Amino acid sequence: MRELRERILSEGQYIGNNILKLDSFLNHQVDPFLMSKMGIEFWRLFHNAEPTKILTAAVSGIAPAVHAAASFGVPLIFARKARSITQRDVYVRYIPSPTKGGDVQLIVSKEFLCNHNRVLILDDFLATGKTIEALADIVLEAGATLVGIGVVIEKSFQGGRDALQKFGVPIHALTTIVHMNDTGIVLDNGS
Amino acid sequence: MRELRERILSEGQYIGNNILKLDSFLNHQVDPFLMSKMGIEFWRLFHNAEPTKILTAAVSGIAPAVHAAASFGVPLIFARKARSITQRDVYVRYIPSPTKGGDVQLIVSKEFLCNHNRVLILDDFLATGKTIEALADIVLEAGATLVGIGVVIEKSFQGGRDALQKFGVPIHALTTIVHMNDTGIVLDNGS
Repeated sequence: MRELRERILSEGQYIGNNILKLDSFLNHQVDPFLMSKMGIEFWRLFHNAEPTKILTAAVSGIAPAVHAAASFGVPLIFARKARSITQRDVYVRYIPSPTKGGDVQLIVSKEFLCNHNRVLILDDFLATGKTIEALADIVLEAGATLVGIGVVIEKSFQGGRDALQKFGVPIHALTTIVHMNDTGIVLDNGS
Repeated sequence: MRELRERILSEGQYIGNNILKLDSFLNHQVDPFLMSKMGIEFWRLFHNAEPTKILTAAVSGIAPAVHAAASFGVPLIFARKARSITQRDVYVRYIPSPTKGGDVQLIVSKEFLCNHNRVLILDDFLATGKTIEALADIVLEAGATLVGIGVVIEKSFQGGRDALQKFGVPIHALTTIVHMNDTGIVLDNGS
């Protein structure tokens, strides 16, 4: 996506430890038009997989994923990071948080995932793959079918794609960062 | 909004302590079409206020607010509940969390709010008004202009509207619950 590439290159700030700050349009302030275009792009990449639900992780996955859910015409589930008193039977995984430190929980109520569901996982970043691996584990534990994994930005140098190959589903990134440091960000030509 | 009323009455579960569980279409699983219709309805109610930014609180405000942001054609900022290492100078408020217990933080980076902004606050619920009051305080501390407050559901028996009158801006709810307990949910006829 050309527009996404341009926004990353003009507004992204590398702040060390493999963290890219994109707070101006994705992770804190959100450009709704860019989210909408991403949603359509995810539909183009995954509509043949015929998902019936989309699963993402709070917080930053929600904005792009809810627009994608509208493009697919299916519900979105966002895994919570804190359990609500409205939740009874839940699936839980623990993952490390690179931007907040420590471990965080991913929590999905059992009532919204079942063996009839065909689930597309969408998230903002693919780095080490820990978050998406946890979401995929939840999908499989629920007996649902994982049909694809899509991310806004893949940081290909952190190995996440390799960690997710075991799920045997298509993995697509709207943009791929092949290298970044204090002097700049290098994107894959093809994305 | 008739569709919202119907969904609340058919899927809402009262779980005690003034908490309404709407996890099937708003607070955990999300119906993207309903979010889109809500976004248009917020535009109808507030376009005369000419907001230039929308502010909401993570997590449940994001899905309706990002669709509203698309309707208005303006950026959305979601206040985080945990500080990210990407954030430097921030506005912080502490509010009680009725669904998770204890206090939670609301954190907005200073770089995205300034005295040129006309801010519309949107959130999922208006109950006691503590969350929205904290967001409005942040808007004023930033020197920005608060132009309106919109919520998906107002629980009118919890006094939040009275607590927010001091800000002197239009307050609109897409639906108003006037009473709820174990035997049922009563909505305002007008909403």
